[in-house]
Amino acid sequence: MSTRRDFLQNMGLGIGFASLAPTLLQTTQAAGISQNPAPKLRVALMGLGSYATRVAEAMKTCQSAVLTGIVTGTPAKIPVWKEKYALADKNIYSYETLGELKNNPDIDVVYVITPNSLHHTHVIQVAATGKHVITEKPMADTAKHAEEMIKACEKAGVKLLVGYRMHFEPYTREVIRMLRDGEMGTLMHVDNYMGFRIGDPTQWRLKKDLAGGGALMDVGVYCLNAARYLTNEEPLWVTAQETKTDPVKFKEVDETITFQLGFPGGVIASCATSYNVNLERLYAVGTKGFVEMSPAYSYGPIKGRTHKGPLNEPVVTHQTLQMDGMADIILNGKTMTPAVDGYEGLRDMKIIDAIYESIRKKGVKIQLG
Amino acid sequence: MSTRRDFLQNMGLGIGFASLAPTLLQTTQAAGISQNPAPKLRVALMGLGSYATRVAEAMKTCQSAVLTGIVTGTPAKIPVWKEKYALADKNIYSYETLGELKNNPDIDVVYVITPNSLHHTHVIQVAATGKHVITEKPMADTAKHAEEMIKACEKAGVKLLVGYRMHFEPYTREVIRMLRDGEMGTLMHVDNYMGFRIGDPTQWRLKKDLAGGGALMDVGVYCLNAARYLTNEEPLWVTAQETKTDPVKFKEVDETITFQLGFPGGVIASCATSYNVNLERLYAVGTKGFVEMSPAYSYGPIKGRTHKGPLNEPVVTHQTLQMDGMADIILNGKTMTPAVDGYEGLRDMKIIDAIYESIRKKGVKIQLG
Repeated sequence: MSTRRDFLQNMGLGIGFASLAPTLLQTTQAAGISQNPAPKLRVALMGLGSYATRVAEAMKTCQSAVLTGIVTGTPAKIPVWKEKYALADKNIYSYETLGELKNNPDIDVVYVITPNSLHHTHVIQVAATGKHVITEKPMADTAKHAEEMIKACEKAGVKLLVGYRMHFEPYTREVIRMLRDGEMGTLMHVDNYMGFRIGDPTQWRLKKDLAGGGALMDVGVYCLNAARYLTNEEPLWVTAQETKTDPVKFKEVDETITFQLGFPGGVIASCATSYNVNLERLYAVGTKGFVEMSPAYSYGPIKGRTHKGPLNEPVVTHQTLQMDGMADIILNGKTMTPAVDGYEGLRDMKIIDAIYESIRKKGVKIQLG
Repeated sequence: MSTRRDFLQNMGLGIGFASLAPTLLQTTQAAGISQNPAPKLRVALMGLGSYATRVAEAMKTCQSAVLTGIVTGTPAKIPVWKEKYALADKNIYSYETLGELKNNPDIDVVYVITPNSLHHTHVIQVAATGKHVITEKPMADTAKHAEEMIKACEKAGVKLLVGYRMHFEPYTREVIRMLRDGEMGTLMHVDNYMGFRIGDPTQWRLKKDLAGGGALMDVGVYCLNAARYLTNEEPLWVTAQETKTDPVKFKEVDETITFQLGFPGGVIASCATSYNVNLERLYAVGTKGFVEMSPAYSYGPIKGRTHKGPLNEPVVTHQTLQMDGMADIILNGKTMTPAVDGYEGLRDMKIIDAIYESIRKKGVKIQLG
């Protein structure tokens, strides 16, 4: 416990993690003070693919979030998930019965992990039940859809969060802290890369109508989101270029995109993303030093170094931290910087839209604003 | 000696270095065979700034090139250089007496190390004397000037080489060999960065009329030249973006430029260059592995690693190798790949012209052709 507590305290998140509550509780109990345990965030997962499985496994060690339900269109998965995660029958939904969530007091939030283009519909459907929503990144397939999702959640009075896993990750937090504290001097340049060689050519990520786009949507969003939190600014313009070496496999979606974001302070973030190249790096250099993370965005272990030497942060399960952190946001109204809310997702979606526009217009600068 | 010999033999340059000749000579002498020593390339340096001093010092350990003369516009430097490098009075020229080189049998080649914009005039003047010419990179300030330099040298029947130091450097050669031998699989992506925080704001590098341009001209050329030798292709298009955080210091020339080169095989090389950010990296990733050099372009020691582990090549003085290699090209007609001739320089200059054009046109793709 102490290692984890020390780690959380060292993260500089600026939010009080609900996961500390049980420890405090033990202390008060030991002192003979009677108190109910802190409530946990009760989560239903929607879309039971491989990433949902990863989240479910990670939540086993959450201290302030617990998996209580599922939404699935595949009946065969139900017995497996019921057994594995001790789910009650009444907390198991199909897409047809989704509306009944509104009467279920055992579920606080639905984490939408369906294909990108379905986030829009699913988030709006969940919001209509009065439940909070987490949507996996990318938030949507277009900025227009992202805006509609925000409006729907605001109208329903529910919170909307986006699965920005790295915002909770210790190396990333430490790098942000170093930049904010001026340890790299004035930030001058950023390179962010994220790509991998995608497998199964029949998967939904390669279908335009489900994925919305290709590598940029799926993993390029890490690079552009990182560029924003490294600079702590919103870009003024974007330029982008595309290349496709396998027009059969990548018939419907982008294979490799390079893009550049121009920030008010003068930084140009130079980024690349791919479904056909292994790439993974975050690099920020200032007038007094640099920081490199590589790997930088995958599930870990993350590795980092700066002009002062290697970074040594705790190796954690990202999704565990994310869900504990989101519990604190949803249950306790905590805030964090950078945010993980719908507006944060919308800003990325506007940039993604602009990147595709720049590619269509042969690389010309698209002003953001 | 054996270390150096082994190293040269391992370089896979595909050229027989003249510097091996003395060793062979010793062998034949030991066998009692009489033979004149291999002739050395007799070099005059033009423009005695800090880089010329570096070249002169490096040439002390050359085996097949020797410093025999200078061309300078600063009389105060003459006694220092005469003394230090044992130069004969008759091999010392000013820019006014340059034409007399034609009658001097002690000088084979003039290495032009004057400010970029003066290369054009100086190379043409040297060629008119019938001497071979080496010009420091960037070859010229514009592609048009580079073409005129090539024509002047062809007309005069002299060789024109460009100071592409890295083409002789062991880590670079090994990386090229690995790529050509398919050890990285199919090359998919390249990142090249070179920049530094420039000092003295009054230096010629910050004057447009002398430097032709800023960081791109001076050190960006390493990135684009590397992109060409890594891919072994000529780019089809270029896009570029500029940022300027210090418009006073960088009033006349570019401070920081990012640019991208699109190659026929599908690689986009993503590059950045700066006079205000420390950047230095060469990165090439293929379907089977990667290579990184960092530092990659400065005077050494270079460091490199691949998917298989660290690269361990000999640490050498780049300019020594370059001048020995150029001796072999000029004296023995050897060829090397990539070339270090005027056409190689011209290709880079055409890309530099296109980068500036893309910046003027808000990042739009400029087709190269």
